[in-house]
Amino acid sequence: MSAIPEDFVHKTAQLSEAATRPFPNSRKVYVTGSRPDLRVPMREVTQSPTLTSGEPEENPPIPVYDTSGPYTDPEASIDLMAGLPDLRSGWIEARGDTEQLDGPTSAFGRARQSDPALAHLRFEHLRTPRRAKPGQTITQMAYARRGIITPEMEFVAIRENMRLDELRADPRYAKLLRQHPGNAFGQPLPEQITPEFVRDEVARGRAVIPANINHPEVEPMIIGRNFRVKINTNIGNSATTSSIEEEVEKMVWSARWGGDTLMDLSTGKNIHETREWILRNSPVPIGTVPIYQALEKVDGRPEELTWELVRDTLIEQAEQGVDYFTIHAGLLLRYIPLTADRVTGIVSRGGSILAKWCLAHHQENFLYTNFEELCEILRTYDVAVSLGDGLRPGSLADANDRAQFAELETLGELTRRAWEHDVQVMIEGPGHVPLQMIQENVTKELADCFEAPFYTLGPLITDIAPAYDHITSGIGAANIGWYGTAMLCYVTPKEHLGLPDKEDVRSGIITYKIAAHGADLGKGLPGAQIQDNALSKARFEFRWEDQFNLSLDPERAREFHDRTLPHDSHKVAHFCSMCGPHFCSMKITQDVREYANSQKIEDLDQAVESGMQEKAREFREAGAELYKEV
Amino acid sequence: MSAIPEDFVHKTAQLSEAATRPFPNSRKVYVTGSRPDLRVPMREVTQSPTLTSGEPEENPPIPVYDTSGPYTDPEASIDLMAGLPDLRSGWIEARGDTEQLDGPTSAFGRARQSDPALAHLRFEHLRTPRRAKPGQTITQMAYARRGIITPEMEFVAIRENMRLDELRADPRYAKLLRQHPGNAFGQPLPEQITPEFVRDEVARGRAVIPANINHPEVEPMIIGRNFRVKINTNIGNSATTSSIEEEVEKMVWSARWGGDTLMDLSTGKNIHETREWILRNSPVPIGTVPIYQALEKVDGRPEELTWELVRDTLIEQAEQGVDYFTIHAGLLLRYIPLTADRVTGIVSRGGSILAKWCLAHHQENFLYTNFEELCEILRTYDVAVSLGDGLRPGSLADANDRAQFAELETLGELTRRAWEHDVQVMIEGPGHVPLQMIQENVTKELADCFEAPFYTLGPLITDIAPAYDHITSGIGAANIGWYGTAMLCYVTPKEHLGLPDKEDVRSGIITYKIAAHGADLGKGLPGAQIQDNALSKARFEFRWEDQFNLSLDPERAREFHDRTLPHDSHKVAHFCSMCGPHFCSMKITQDVREYANSQKIEDLDQAVESGMQEKAREFREAGAELYKEV
Repeated sequence: MSAIPEDFVHKTAQLSEAATRPFPNSRKVYVTGSRPDLRVPMREVTQSPTLTSGEPEENPPIPVYDTSGPYTDPEASIDLMAGLPDLRSGWIEARGDTEQLDGPTSAFGRARQSDPALAHLRFEHLRTPRRAKPGQTITQMAYARRGIITPEMEFVAIRENMRLDELRADPRYAKLLRQHPGNAFGQPLPEQITPEFVRDEVARGRAVIPANINHPEVEPMIIGRNFRVKINTNIGNSATTSSIEEEVEKMVWSARWGGDTLMDLSTGKNIHETREWILRNSPVPIGTVPIYQALEKVDGRPEELTWELVRDTLIEQAEQGVDYFTIHAGLLLRYIPLTADRVTGIVSRGGSILAKWCLAHHQENFLYTNFEELCEILRTYDVAVSLGDGLRPGSLADANDRAQFAELETLGELTRRAWEHDVQVMIEGPGHVPLQMIQENVTKELADCFEAPFYTLGPLITDIAPAYDHITSGIGAANIGWYGTAMLCYVTPKEHLGLPDKEDVRSGIITYKIAAHGADLGKGLPGAQIQDNALSKARFEFRWEDQFNLSLDPERAREFHDRTLPHDSHKVAHFCSMCGPHFCSMKITQDVREYANSQKIEDLDQAVESGMQEKAREFREAGAELYKEV
Repeated sequence: MSAIPEDFVHKTAQLSEAATRPFPNSRKVYVTGSRPDLRVPMREVTQSPTLTSGEPEENPPIPVYDTSGPYTDPEASIDLMAGLPDLRSGWIEARGDTEQLDGPTSAFGRARQSDPALAHLRFEHLRTPRRAKPGQTITQMAYARRGIITPEMEFVAIRENMRLDELRADPRYAKLLRQHPGNAFGQPLPEQITPEFVRDEVARGRAVIPANINHPEVEPMIIGRNFRVKINTNIGNSATTSSIEEEVEKMVWSARWGGDTLMDLSTGKNIHETREWILRNSPVPIGTVPIYQALEKVDGRPEELTWELVRDTLIEQAEQGVDYFTIHAGLLLRYIPLTADRVTGIVSRGGSILAKWCLAHHQENFLYTNFEELCEILRTYDVAVSLGDGLRPGSLADANDRAQFAELETLGELTRRAWEHDVQVMIEGPGHVPLQMIQENVTKELADCFEAPFYTLGPLITDIAPAYDHITSGIGAANIGWYGTAMLCYVTPKEHLGLPDKEDVRSGIITYKIAAHGADLGKGLPGAQIQDNALSKARFEFRWEDQFNLSLDPERAREFHDRTLPHDSHKVAHFCSMCGPHFCSMKITQDVREYANSQKIEDLDQAVESGMQEKAREFREAGAELYKEV
């Protein structure tokens, strides 16, 4: 962090215009739930009308799932120094089952807070942490099992539903709502997401709502295969240092393009302070791999890790507000030899750290042996656990091998045990898997882990395309999402090669939004096809602006178009750059359709059979001029 | 073409260094077949040894399928003015069933050749065309059906086989040859490709070898689902003009990155001359859509097209050497009304032209009514026909609809009729199709078209990502290739938005190489996993250079790595840029493995159970220092 001027945070911390400018022709809308403080954000893309020879046809606004938080709301005042508005504290306090502490209870958290040397890095408006009162279980799963619908559950129900009920009642959307039947591999998705459905899914453990009581700024979201497929992004400083400001910018950037959750995988110095800045400004759930920070505390020597040190780290991070932890508790000592003949051994960072510890001590993984106490910590703050796949394959050759599946079976055992504590659980998955072996991963995970949400990294379907691994993995991700994976961890073009910059992050996210949306369509998620239908209609009608605005990356779509046809007049042109004004298939088809409509197209067959030539003459006359000046 | 200086071609036409430099650590090798003039090009990537504490372990060279032609061979002298060396004329002449003409027989070809105003654009060393002698059938299919194995068939057998027999006999490759069983949906691929297998597949119509007798420069390749999945790229000048030199550069560029065939979709002026330059310099088969040029000849007015004009265009192009034609003969008049309710009507350019013609004349598609004569032309030169899907869906909404499938059924009828003339046939497919509806396309195509090779555009699995449609379609392409599509037509990031530049072409090709290779792996193509295994081994052993060199795009992989760690010393570093020197999972695993090997890992379980602490102590001592200086 040496590159940071001492005073940078207090005087200069702000976001780039690129990370915060509103999307074109979009407005932020909030759908209010059963109480006034339950306002669910969405984005609405307005459209221009279709110009016909008669009355212009109205094209209704299209709602879009919005992860960007207040940053894209021109009404919101953003102050990184103060953090985001507190959305959930009222809900949490009203439950009366948590207590406000005087300060952090972890040794490390206390030490960092009292270190004057860190003053220039520290977030100014530190909250004191909150935790469950003794004897209380305050996880979303606990409430769900007790039959309680929390505001968080209602929030995600409204968010998932995307006003589909309203759209169905509005005749302007009738055609846009047409959708192909999906194939959800045995579990069709519900026609409408109700708060009760959310509660039931959380109670069954089929979905998680990662929402630490110490992250009240989060806009609740849900991860489960009966909901929209989600994507996770990763940030973190590492060998090359990056400043706190950069990390916060990356978080906002990730949320802007559609990251549903974000893992802070920092391994450098000042991880604690960086995390605080990120959490206080993050509208999306934040995940970490606590063992990374624990390793920093022992100067990178895995064999020196202890449960006590990790325990303190868990509490430190839980009290800051981390929403889910990746815990590699399923990597057992007896599984390590199963990796010896692999092409790529153990490639998970957490997995290798623990493997090294196990071998050094010849003892069982201490995360496994202390799993009960670990769950006690998690449930005190409602941190969800993401059971890590430390033995995931790092190459096609190692896919679906005994090491991987042995660990997965243990993750199933741990799932049950976590659920006994009402801890919310996700299961992490691979990795590198060829196309024909992907589905087995989902089938086995659902069976062995009792349908706990699956959260996979890719998988990459081939190893031979470094620099394009967002694509090799995006293909696997679309497939595994379709088969039933609930959240897809993104991969950037720099995977295996270097640290991603902002453009890499953007490419990775859009690739994964494509994969997740492709999976939603494949499963038949109700309403999923609206945006596709609207964009295609706009494309066909040469409403260029609407086509840009309805796309996952409106800015890049416009930029690419403008490189060929930069003038504004071309945005309303009745042709496109590929074919030019005199030769355009879409224009020809419009002519065909207009003709067909005017001539009662049903009669055409008959006309041909009876050899009528009159219609042909009419059409030649009407259609003589293909291209009309704009 | 106004931007071209009059004399540009004769004085300056040359390729960029970027398009022709050899790949790093690669050498061009030629495998000689049963006759000395049958030399099959491949690329061989050499590897550095693995450094261990004992003797260095040799890593054998990895053969790579090579589409780049002589351009990446430092021994070859390239002269665009003279064209590529003539590979096949000896084979063609030896068959004695064709005759050399005095000059072009098409009216248009003759007119262009005698027009003095075109002198500055014209390729200097025009060949006079060749055609079948009267009564002779000279297509690869005709030979195959007569039991003849042509040199072209032997060439592709060697090319597909990629020296797999040699590798199997060489113990250095034993581990690299390990591969997961594929799922080829009922038709397992043969363990070895023999010339006889090639002949049989061509005879059955399950594969095509596009190799016009007037394109003797082509390096023969095969398209069929029991061979490597191929990719096609498109180039062509359009509304924005591009020079002949640029088009030739694009062709070489496409072949460099892995394009197996190339379609010249030019719609501007001087199409005839551009095509000549491309053909004379192209090592890959060239396809066209002849109706595009025909439309130019009637100033873009579809209703003025006539069979006679198209017929002359077919002969013009066949005599230049075009290897396959896209012919939209399956778009019947009675199918047009089926598109009237579509979201995106008719989006195929060829399809819309013919639809407009049919409606204007109220007559059946003249390509359908003249199909017998059309086949006579094709078989005179051995031009393969790619039966176009003029009614392919242009949006998810229109996928797999009655219009699309009605046309597909007619393509089946035309397949049979073409085969009666011994004409080689491919079937074009969509388009825009959501994940769950892709397989139906392959199943139906195989059934309706008697297993003729399927050749699809994508399909895009969602409509909402313009600017990323190489990815939306690459996902669909990997899946449809796995299900049995033989060739994938690439899509670039500029699809729907503008004309691709060179970097877009490169991105599109690599994306499609990923899709095609993913499909090969999915089906279990023997040997397909060698390159993955070798690259992953190199990655795991920190052989950075080998990792770059074995990748689909070595230049970009290196460039991305260098952005984070630019120094040469980092290319041999025992760590990577993601985690830095002190914290690297791969390094940890290497330690684990070394320890496991030295300590007889099988005993570990027992050691733990018996509480042996000695081994633990040893390991701590041995592993105390994680990072060793490079």
